[in-house]
Amino acid sequence: MDKPLKIAVAGLGTVGAGVLKLLAEHGDLLERRCGRKVVVTAVSALDPNKDRGVPLDGFEFFQDSAKMAAQADADVIVELIGGEDGIAKETVEAAIAASRHVVSANKALIAHHGTDLALKAEVAGVTLAYEAAVAGGIPIIKALREGFAGNAIKSVHGILNGTCNYILSRMRDEGLEFDEVLSDAQALGYAEADPGFDIDGVDAAHKLAILASLAFGRQVDFNGVHIEGIRHISQLDMHFAEELGYRIKLLGIASQNGQGITQRVHPCLVPIDAQIASVEGVFNAVVAEGDFVDTLMMEGRGAGEGPTASAVCADIADIARDNTLPAFGIAAANLKAAETLPMKRHKGAYYIRLMVIDRPGIFADIAATLRDNEVSMESILQHGRGAPGEAVPVVLTLHETEEIRAAAVIETISGFDGLLQAPVMIRIENL
Amino acid sequence: MDKPLKIAVAGLGTVGAGVLKLLAEHGDLLERRCGRKVVVTAVSALDPNKDRGVPLDGFEFFQDSAKMAAQADADVIVELIGGEDGIAKETVEAAIAASRHVVSANKALIAHHGTDLALKAEVAGVTLAYEAAVAGGIPIIKALREGFAGNAIKSVHGILNGTCNYILSRMRDEGLEFDEVLSDAQALGYAEADPGFDIDGVDAAHKLAILASLAFGRQVDFNGVHIEGIRHISQLDMHFAEELGYRIKLLGIASQNGQGITQRVHPCLVPIDAQIASVEGVFNAVVAEGDFVDTLMMEGRGAGEGPTASAVCADIADIARDNTLPAFGIAAANLKAAETLPMKRHKGAYYIRLMVIDRPGIFADIAATLRDNEVSMESILQHGRGAPGEAVPVVLTLHETEEIRAAAVIETISGFDGLLQAPVMIRIENL
Repeated sequence: MDKPLKIAVAGLGTVGAGVLKLLAEHGDLLERRCGRKVVVTAVSALDPNKDRGVPLDGFEFFQDSAKMAAQADADVIVELIGGEDGIAKETVEAAIAASRHVVSANKALIAHHGTDLALKAEVAGVTLAYEAAVAGGIPIIKALREGFAGNAIKSVHGILNGTCNYILSRMRDEGLEFDEVLSDAQALGYAEADPGFDIDGVDAAHKLAILASLAFGRQVDFNGVHIEGIRHISQLDMHFAEELGYRIKLLGIASQNGQGITQRVHPCLVPIDAQIASVEGVFNAVVAEGDFVDTLMMEGRGAGEGPTASAVCADIADIARDNTLPAFGIAAANLKAAETLPMKRHKGAYYIRLMVIDRPGIFADIAATLRDNEVSMESILQHGRGAPGEAVPVVLTLHETEEIRAAAVIETISGFDGLLQAPVMIRIENL
Repeated sequence: MDKPLKIAVAGLGTVGAGVLKLLAEHGDLLERRCGRKVVVTAVSALDPNKDRGVPLDGFEFFQDSAKMAAQADADVIVELIGGEDGIAKETVEAAIAASRHVVSANKALIAHHGTDLALKAEVAGVTLAYEAAVAGGIPIIKALREGFAGNAIKSVHGILNGTCNYILSRMRDEGLEFDEVLSDAQALGYAEADPGFDIDGVDAAHKLAILASLAFGRQVDFNGVHIEGIRHISQLDMHFAEELGYRIKLLGIASQNGQGITQRVHPCLVPIDAQIASVEGVFNAVVAEGDFVDTLMMEGRGAGEGPTASAVCADIADIARDNTLPAFGIAAANLKAAETLPMKRHKGAYYIRLMVIDRPGIFADIAATLRDNEVSMESILQHGRGAPGEAVPVVLTLHETEEIRAAAVIETISGFDGLLQAPVMIRIENL
């Protein structure tokens, strides 16, 4: 029996408390599985007196987590503070500098500094593990890094933000507009008071950048992710999507071709019968495609105390069992440059909705614009006819084309007389 | 850079050829990921001259795979022969005796001899890996053993046999009876000429016994699996299932309570809106429930050359990266006895279909039988009324009760006058 693995937990919010609960409740189980005890020796938080619903007796308490990372009697520093810089980064760097392993649930930190931290960890001979940073309880990091080891990975896509999926699911189920559902989600605690990180796609983009690095053996390139959120999604678009056989989901999508990789987070029309279309509410799902294994979908809880604690403790168990690998599967020094392609080089299909005041010749103008940009239309929908001076929605779907051409079409159409608002564009993903 | 990992492949059927193709095609990728080369040194098969669509030049060829396992210049023996005993078992035992790691795709072997082989491997200090034995390309072994390490696992269930799921999917989609779809599946190569292993549930039971061992830290107990197949499923039952809000799937289900574990493979009525109900065709899916992570579903291809080769090569990569664990997560000597509970102690809900010739009093007799056995009915369906002397189907669904009571009800009803055939019973799983 090896000697106990000593853990120091930085950050005692929901996830920190969950990790302490799990380690307390499953001490015997972990000892059985790891062949050694896993014991918490130290914790850090700003307020030593707050009741967190979990006993802290017997743990050394630090208010300065970076100091804890450097000085505590610990083999592993678990960073659950969050945020791409500041004290979270200092804590992780202090841990690595003191040759302690790091387990982090911090997607922002890994998305912004993952390559650099992995390099430092490898130089120091310690593990940097972050299963909890992507898709909560779903062990997608391990699946890509180890389960897919025999495959060239073609693409990874997924529902990576539970708040957005919850809002879109309720909009569809209850026929409500975005703002109504967001307010309600905030009241229920499913969305933050400042919801921008979630609904503008930034959180999903952090996770996608990490998945792309792992899938393609490239340096993490968060700045290369094209990001759009869901604020502009309306009931009108949901209805047209259904009529066309689609549902609207916020997806993160990363793919690789001979020229480089694409990384994008935006709302998508996905076919109703695609498995990912039926992932509803706060659930997350990730689909990876390998050249030998074909597609694998993993679906589960992407956030919350229990699922995130589960992922953190899986990383701790790997360290306890000496079952660890470089952070991104291959040595960080050998990661290739990201070579992220600009979004204008993306090729895909497009949904475009216009609000049009009936004017003779507008369809001819649209048709001419498509012809001039060498873009072909798949379908056009207009139901009924507006009263004089009243706008009606007209929906076009475009066959696969380059984004740069679709953008040119939209720009030209935007200048037409008789348009009441800027066209709405949503990309179609025939998954 | 470590020295190359040398591989000998026993069995050159579809999967063996797939493994050779993958290793040839992805030599560079594996070297990058593993930090060392993975090279095939030897292969074995009965016929040295058969064209398998993959070059064998440069490999030492053995006709006797056990001899290869003992003598080849190899670190890892990959057993792709199949079958619970005979040459497959001899090969694995010879490999372990010669201190070589074993990677096997052989579910029958692991289901029957897993505990014993794991013990032998651990004594010899080598790895026994079998990701490909369960659910093909889905990395469920790794997810349960490592991703779920922080959880007490409550249950595992899944669609573990693609042939059965294909047959049931086509029966539902096309309104065909079992025999028709089976013949067609055989013609198309989706079912074997001797289909019993698949359609009678044995193949799924092999996989379930392995999952149960891993999930619950217990010795593999294939003989404890209750097994029923799908030969008796009819269009009539599919229609009634739909009317009641269910689909019929062959599931393997393992769960644990204070008394022991249950392991069962049988057709089930699952709610139409359960995610697993929408897993169609040859796909497999596994759902695991942990006390912290909640439920995780993994869906992918459960068989075939590419997916199975992917799983075999993930195990090879783990060995190359020295990223290995005991076969069942904990040391085999520490696995608890299985303590599988008999099926009569199972508690669940039941669908029962009777073919009844109209006779006054039969409903009163059914009601009295339920009362006498303290079983309560959830619903009863009968559409129309048969011509005199002609049978009509009557469907009862029972609220949750013990299997032993449901069986007593069925036995009594079977003796009623006016029944044209034995009652059909299908368990209801409200997943």
